Amino acid sequence: MSTPLKLGVAGLGTVGVGLLQLLAAQKELLRARLGRDIEVVAVSARDKAKDRGVSLAAMTWHDDAIELARDSAIDVFVELIGGEDGVARRAVEAALDAGKHVVTANKALLAHHGNELAARAEAQGVALNFEAAVAGSIPVVKTMREALSGNAISRVYGIMNGTCNFILTKMQNEQRPFDEVLALAQAIGYAEADPTFDVGGIDTAHKLALLTTLAFGTEAAFDQIHIEGIQAITPADIEAADEMGYRIKLLGVAMKTDAGIEQRVHPAMVPKYSPIAQVSGVTNCVAIDGDQSGDLLLVGAGAGARATASAVFSDIGDIARGMIYAPFNLRSRDIKPYKRSRLKAHHGAYYLRLSVYDKPGAMAAIATRMGEQDVSLESIVQRRPRTALPGIDARGEPGAPISLILITHETNEQAIRQALSAIEGDGKVSEAPQMIRIEKL
Amino acid sequence: MSTPLKLGVAGLGTVGVGLLQLLAAQKELLRARLGRDIEVVAVSARDKAKDRGVSLAAMTWHDDAIELARDSAIDVFVELIGGEDGVARRAVEAALDAGKHVVTANKALLAHHGNELAARAEAQGVALNFEAAVAGSIPVVKTMREALSGNAISRVYGIMNGTCNFILTKMQNEQRPFDEVLALAQAIGYAEADPTFDVGGIDTAHKLALLTTLAFGTEAAFDQIHIEGIQAITPADIEAADEMGYRIKLLGVAMKTDAGIEQRVHPAMVPKYSPIAQVSGVTNCVAIDGDQSGDLLLVGAGAGARATASAVFSDIGDIARGMIYAPFNLRSRDIKPYKRSRLKAHHGAYYLRLSVYDKPGAMAAIATRMGEQDVSLESIVQRRPRTALPGIDARGEPGAPISLILITHETNEQAIRQALSAIEGDGKVSEAPQMIRIEKL
Repeated sequence: MSTPLKLGVAGLGTVGVGLLQLLAAQKELLRARLGRDIEVVAVSARDKAKDRGVSLAAMTWHDDAIELARDSAIDVFVELIGGEDGVARRAVEAALDAGKHVVTANKALLAHHGNELAARAEAQGVALNFEAAVAGSIPVVKTMREALSGNAISRVYGIMNGTCNFILTKMQNEQRPFDEVLALAQAIGYAEADPTFDVGGIDTAHKLALLTTLAFGTEAAFDQIHIEGIQAITPADIEAADEMGYRIKLLGVAMKTDAGIEQRVHPAMVPKYSPIAQVSGVTNCVAIDGDQSGDLLLVGAGAGARATASAVFSDIGDIARGMIYAPFNLRSRDIKPYKRSRLKAHHGAYYLRLSVYDKPGAMAAIATRMGEQDVSLESIVQRRPRTALPGIDARGEPGAPISLILITHETNEQAIRQALSAIEGDGKVSEAPQMIRIEKL
Repeated sequence: MSTPLKLGVAGLGTVGVGLLQLLAAQKELLRARLGRDIEVVAVSARDKAKDRGVSLAAMTWHDDAIELARDSAIDVFVELIGGEDGVARRAVEAALDAGKHVVTANKALLAHHGNELAARAEAQGVALNFEAAVAGSIPVVKTMREALSGNAISRVYGIMNGTCNFILTKMQNEQRPFDEVLALAQAIGYAEADPTFDVGGIDTAHKLALLTTLAFGTEAAFDQIHIEGIQAITPADIEAADEMGYRIKLLGVAMKTDAGIEQRVHPAMVPKYSPIAQVSGVTNCVAIDGDQSGDLLLVGAGAGARATASAVFSDIGDIARGMIYAPFNLRSRDIKPYKRSRLKAHHGAYYLRLSVYDKPGAMAAIATRMGEQDVSLESIVQRRPRTALPGIDARGEPGAPISLILITHETNEQAIRQALSAIEGDGKVSEAPQMIRIEKL
């Protein structure tokens, strides 16, 4: 049997402890599969005294993660600290510079500094593996780097934030408003006290930036991502989507267009009877469209101590087997600059919900504005407002706004924006229109 | 750049030609990703003169695949001939014995001779890769060997035959009987003239045997698999399943039980609103339940020239990167004998459809027989027979059989079989009862 692979683990939160527990529980299995032992020889965390339910007695303790990163006893530095800068970044840099392999679950770090860190890893000939950074236990990084290595990718997209998907699923199933379900998610620990990072789409965008680089061989460009969260989604939208045959999901999407790469995070409608529409609760999924493979969809746990530890271990197992190559699948000199395809050139169909003053000529004015932009409509549904009393026809009260739901044929975003802006300018709507992109599967 | 990796490709059917086309189309991309060229230096097939739309001018032609396997110019022998014995087997053995890496898409070969071939590969220190043998472009072998290397697996299952899934989907969508849809599938080339291999579940069982070995580290045991096909599924079952909240899919399932490993291929009911229920047409999927990862589901193209070539290339890419290890993820000496868990001990819920003579006491007799076996019922639906004329209540014609649909609570297969046998013995049913297992997701 080969010599053991020696790990230094920085960060002993739920994932770090989950990794130690996995290594202890599967010791014999891993030895048989990898032909060598995996040993944690050193750790660092904030509080040495804290009871984590695992024994650290056999491991060297470092108060400082950077010291751990340079510990000559370790082969692999496992970074589970988190955060795009600060200690995590400095420790990863120190480990790479010391010629250690690095395994990290830190999407924010890589979304912001991945290009530079990949170049450092390459210069040292060491691994920088990050399976756990995107969609928990789902092996999307491995699939893109290895399983699809013979494919040109045209699009990668997915549901990559469990908090958002839990909220949208609950809103769907129980017809409850966003604020109420968010409060519930916070109460049961599925959402942070400050939920912006999740519900605002930033977490999804971090992950998307990494998938974009893997798919298209371009530099990670987090700040070039169009980001919308789920805060503006209402039960009325979810109900209308259902009626039209759709579900609303927060998607991160990166796709190749003639102009460059389009990267966007936003609520999107997907056909109700598609596998992705059935991905519910905190479950994640990632879909990859390859020119040879066709469309591939991976569904699994996006978070949690064990699921994340499973992905972290997958990276460690590859290193134990000597599988070491460029983090983003290309040498740094082959990674191309990112060229943004602007969202206003986006092609697709749209869902629109307008609160229209029910006056003569309103519908005609809206249809005219759509026509001016060459936007044609696939479906139109006019609804009685929810505030109307049962049995009283709201259309009988001239002036009260009614809800108008439109599904357009394929068009482009600039046309939609200009049409909506003109409609608002005409004063025919009582509030800003709701617009949700329909993702073509 | 390293030296090129040199391939010998045996078999130039759609997949072989798909591979040559992939290599030509992605030449620059592959060079950048792998850091070396992949070259086909030699080929063999039945008919040298046939126009395949690709030039073979630069390649050495062998009439004999076994000669190709021993060609000193090749590093990797790619076997795309097919068949469990004959030329394919002898050529793979020759290649391994000559110290060549082998990539194969041949599930029948590995299901029957995988144990022995894996030992040969190990003895030579070469790869025996077979991603394309299971579920086309879906990277299930890589996921099980590498991504889930830190997991103990409790169950692996999936929809692994596109012909069956196409037929079941079409029966569902168009309320048409099996024979009619099979004839259609044959007419459009989705089913063979002799469809037994597909619709009888044998193809699925070949794939399942390989997944079982990967999941549980036991010897491939194709002849220990319980196999039922989809020929007995009727529109009445599909309609009743829909009403009860299920879809019917042909599943291959391997799971660990206290008694050993249960391997079974049969039509199964899955909840209508689950991702797997939405896997329709020729699309395949595989689900893997890991103790750390949780449940993972992979969905994609199960067949087709390009999708299969994508998987074949994935295996070649791994070899090009020097990723070579035991085919079934364990050294031969660590692979355990297969220990069968008998199906009669299977635990689960069941769907039963009985054609019951509508005489006084019939229902009571059936309920008694169920009770004797401790089988309790979750749902009961009694239906008017489809042959009844509209407006005439079939219940008004004493003695005409009615359709009785039962969904049981969780029980075991022996109890169900004994109850059904007793019911048949009582003479209360006009035809053999239909029994479909409900798979717990």
